[in-house]
Amino acid sequence: MLGDPTKWYIERITPDLVQLTSIKGVVFSGKSKYQTVEVLENGCFGRCLVLDGKTQSSQADEFIYHQSLVHPVMLAHPNPETVCIAGGGEGATAREALRHNTVKRAVMIDLDAEVVDLCREYLQGHHQGAFDDPRLDLQINDASAYLQGTPERFDVILLDLPDPMEGGPAYLLYTRSFYEMLRDKLNPGGLLVTQSGPASVINYTEVFTAINRTLREVFPTVVPYSVHMQSFGETWGFNAASLGPNPAHLTPAEVDARLAERGIAPLDFYDGVIHSALFALPPYIRAAIESEDRIITAENPLFVF
Amino acid sequence: MLGDPTKWYIERITPDLVQLTSIKGVVFSGKSKYQTVEVLENGCFGRCLVLDGKTQSSQADEFIYHQSLVHPVMLAHPNPETVCIAGGGEGATAREALRHNTVKRAVMIDLDAEVVDLCREYLQGHHQGAFDDPRLDLQINDASAYLQGTPERFDVILLDLPDPMEGGPAYLLYTRSFYEMLRDKLNPGGLLVTQSGPASVINYTEVFTAINRTLREVFPTVVPYSVHMQSFGETWGFNAASLGPNPAHLTPAEVDARLAERGIAPLDFYDGVIHSALFALPPYIRAAIESEDRIITAENPLFVF
Amino acid sequence: MLGDPTKWYIERITPDLVQLTSIKGVVFSGKSKYQTVEVLENGCFGRCLVLDGKTQSSQADEFIYHQSLVHPVMLAHPNPETVCIAGGGEGATAREALRHNTVKRAVMIDLDAEVVDLCREYLQGHHQGAFDDPRLDLQINDASAYLQGTPERFDVILLDLPDPMEGGPAYLLYTRSFYEMLRDKLNPGGLLVTQSGPASVINYTEVFTAINRTLREVFPTVVPYSVHMQSFGETWGFNAASLGPNPAHLTPAEVDARLAERGIAPLDFYDGVIHSALFALPPYIRAAIESEDRIITAENPLFVF
Amino acid sequence: MLGDPTKWYIERITPDLVQLTSIKGVVFSGKSKYQTVEVLENGCFGRCLVLDGKTQSSQADEFIYHQSLVHPVMLAHPNPETVCIAGGGEGATAREALRHNTVKRAVMIDLDAEVVDLCREYLQGHHQGAFDDPRLDLQINDASAYLQGTPERFDVILLDLPDPMEGGPAYLLYTRSFYEMLRDKLNPGGLLVTQSGPASVINYTEVFTAINRTLREVFPTVVPYSVHMQSFGETWGFNAASLGPNPAHLTPAEVDARLAERGIAPLDFYDGVIHSALFALPPYIRAAIESEDRIITAENPLFVF
Repeated sequence: MLGDPTKWYIERITPDLVQLTSIKGVVFSGKSKYQTVEVLENGCFGRCLVLDGKTQSSQADEFIYHQSLVHPVMLAHPNPETVCIAGGGEGATAREALRHNTVKRAVMIDLDAEVVDLCREYLQGHHQGAFDDPRLDLQINDASAYLQGTPERFDVILLDLPDPMEGGPAYLLYTRSFYEMLRDKLNPGGLLVTQSGPASVINYTEVFTAINRTLREVFPTVVPYSVHMQSFGETWGFNAASLGPNPAHLTPAEVDARLAERGIAPLDFYDGVIHSALFALPPYIRAAIESEDRIITAENPLFVF
Repeated sequence: MLGDPTKWYIERITPDLVQLTSIKGVVFSGKSKYQTVEVLENGCFGRCLVLDGKTQSSQADEFIYHQSLVHPVMLAHPNPETVCIAGGGEGATAREALRHNTVKRAVMIDLDAEVVDLCREYLQGHHQGAFDDPRLDLQINDASAYLQGTPERFDVILLDLPDPMEGGPAYLLYTRSFYEMLRDKLNPGGLLVTQSGPASVINYTEVFTAINRTLREVFPTVVPYSVHMQSFGETWGFNAASLGPNPAHLTPAEVDARLAERGIAPLDFYDGVIHSALFALPPYIRAAIESEDRIITAENPLFVF
Repeated sequence: MLGDPTKWYIERITPDLVQLTSIKGVVFSGKSKYQTVEVLENGCFGRCLVLDGKTQSSQADEFIYHQSLVHPVMLAHPNPETVCIAGGGEGATAREALRHNTVKRAVMIDLDAEVVDLCREYLQGHHQGAFDDPRLDLQINDASAYLQGTPERFDVILLDLPDPMEGGPAYLLYTRSFYEMLRDKLNPGGLLVTQSGPASVINYTEVFTAINRTLREVFPTVVPYSVHMQSFGETWGFNAASLGPNPAHLTPAEVDARLAERGIAPLDFYDGVIHSALFALPPYIRAAIESEDRIITAENPLFVF
Repeated sequence: MLGDPTKWYIERITPDLVQLTSIKGVVFSGKSKYQTVEVLENGCFGRCLVLDGKTQSSQADEFIYHQSLVHPVMLAHPNPETVCIAGGGEGATAREALRHNTVKRAVMIDLDAEVVDLCREYLQGHHQGAFDDPRLDLQINDASAYLQGTPERFDVILLDLPDPMEGGPAYLLYTRSFYEMLRDKLNPGGLLVTQSGPASVINYTEVFTAINRTLREVFPTVVPYSVHMQSFGETWGFNAASLGPNPAHLTPAEVDARLAERGIAPLDFYDGVIHSALFALPPYIRAAIESEDRIITAENPLFVF
């Protein structure tokens, strides 16, 4: 009954939609230099990381999010040896990227050392030891500052950043100038992916279509895709951008073959069938993407609710 | 802020997950002979039908639900002339079925005359005049009783029933014996589809996999599929069963060609691309379906939360 | 269970305290020229008037509020013939004042004609016909403007105004200059009372003590008092100010005798015993009142949460 | 906004009334042998003890509850030397009783050693060292079993028990036979008090009036009283029963004089003025008490929601 369980986590998805999930325990609650940080034992979704009141990922379905983020672009690249991860403090994006035995070096740049330390300690189910992989080079820095200051180029860039929120640390990492800089940090034929906010029927135009439009200003090939994330209370959007192959052109059989070649054991969520389905957006979203004309810049940024 | 809006609809998705949506107005609130009935103007999802405290469909995304329910089996059948709809009081299942110009007769059986009358009056955006189509034969009756008493057979049967709930009106319509009876009401090569409860990462085994397993006892071909329904707060499951073609074998091009042949103008949600994606279940759900051994019977019924 | 009832009214009492009450029906929901207006059938408190998201009064306990507001000052005056009511759109303050058979004329000034009309129509249990009493003179106007423009003076002034809220219509009616103007509108020996916001253990210093302090700048006698209002989710404060007798000095026997003299049948809430108890504030509140030094002015207004 | 704060404690006061308070931290959450136990840092009420989902007491207003429970009967007794406390695991009832310098021995009987230990550790603001007072004799036992097995008699018995809940540990401690046993454990002229559940306008007849009626079967003098407890979301009831003086007959001056005689420094809440006000019940409750005819027995127990 209302009051059973008695402790609840309230997350406002939109002004008119709120998700309540029961709290079994508060593993950690505090503030880092940049944001409020909570690690909760959630009665519905297991152990969760919550930054500034927004669920970043949950034990119950983080595999869906991270496999959807990482594998489409990693597989589309014929031989990804160097990977850059921006954000991804939980270590789960690194975990998925490092599954590809082609990878020789992965640079992970996260702004918030405290969050990374908390994740290493409290979210072992998320990173599964990825932080100890000798191929991983963890840099505590602003992703933009770090990349501007390095001559290194990458085969794949994975943007696992917090949503663009007013006053939050990340909104500049969803702008045209940032994407232009990233394009120049990719090797020829390189690919990039960014989480792109909600893509569900009630708010797919909040940032998802505009991020797509902005990337199209910068990259020759941009493909939007989405997956339902139960713990986010929404279908979630991604955009892949490529200087080389189009990830959406891989057939299920090609996906499964490449996964095997790279020594990746069968995954719980991602495979060839799912790869194709991720890119299947309904007509009403395809139309919205085609007609989108907002280009996100530092001067005209966009924010999620 | 909490308290802005001030009026909220609280729907418990699971014991540990609750969805709050703002209420702009209560269009109707009462009890029919069988269930509590509410028509709400929801701040997030527009006009909604709520039966026994469960959202049946909402203006914002009912097209996703009804097009996913209806078109895969309708299109898989080469020439559906007779259709039976069980439930579907909003008239939106009928609306979608009647789009196929092959249909000569659609019998819609709903238990609850009061709900149907309320939908005709208050959910005109749902039925869009389907109740006035001369091909529609509306029968107020228990679906099981009506079908047992008629010699008629159908090309397609569409089961748009309330979830199986303890004490609710519908749980017997998810059992093996009911499906056996339906099989005998299909013409050769006929198909059936049933909404099948939640199919999201947190509760796909509640009834979705068991309905699949039960249908497999009765039909040679059964294909599970799912779609994210934002207003339900979950990915939603369906199972199609066939005495003839397998809907999952239609290619996107075949789907689009048949839609055109049948005079169906481009739909907001469903098309060839979506058709294929609907059937793309992730490995963890495919594995659960394969290993499912629960067969639902009147003696061993299953209920959703 | 959470989701049973499914429709709830959410009122935020403080940033950290929220009251949910079930909604049986929405009798009226709209906006007047000045504020949002709702008349709800509340599952806990019966029919309620809600202005700008704040419960003004509820069928279940409005008698406690209105009898506490009206009778202490009315009884303290030996012969109240003329009464001025500012606010009180429900008509229940008028209802209580008009119980005193000494009253020959009651001027009720309310800003919002739409609210008054809605109350007359939908809150008959509140006003109980008070609007039809020939002694009542209803003026639709700003209380301050009306009183400044009239030469009339009153024996008792009853301030039943909305809380002072930023941007709300009433905050200037809680200031020193307004009270100075009211003092000049009282006959010799006259009394005034104002509802004074929350007086419970968690927020008695929000406005209650400051209204008291402000009145003490203007009146020789000011007595604070309070009563628990379940539907407000708090103990509620009042301040009586007097140019004549001190209401707190009436004994229970005197109160009961005057009630009888004035032809007032036994009331559900107010009598001599309650009169004395209303003025019994605990030491921690008495100390806060003594040490309060905030004087509310138009330049330095105070607002409730 | 809804979702700021994000962690909330939900307590259902009645089926149609729910109180949400923000959670700053979960100090302890677990199960004892008898009940679920939580110590929360509440954003509204400070540190709280919650048993079986019901707030027992909160830092913000426990002084109101415990001073209202303890002092009226302690002061009415001319010389209380021996005190028995049943329940009161927080140690705050003991703290108040031991303020009276007449007390030579206080036996505190609590069923749940784990709760007492948690309170000693986590609620130091509640007990303020009372557990270390050499006059306190702590007994871990069922109050009924302990008292039946002891020949000791007391001047005052303070019943600070959990509400009578179905399946809870305490409902038999609100029955006539228990009160009969307690009467025989009082010295001549002794007094007893019991917390008596909600006494607010919406549910004063739930148990408050029936506990009064039951005590009247056993004691010559029974006086009901109440105080608003903000953290309980209600006005709360108590019943004092006496073999000697009637607590309601003490004047404010007598109360203040006795407090001084017993070396009790001015208290935040309780004094002579408050003493009298506690007993001032409104006519509608006095009428309900007079007409109450339910007598609580083990065979016909009563439960709160």
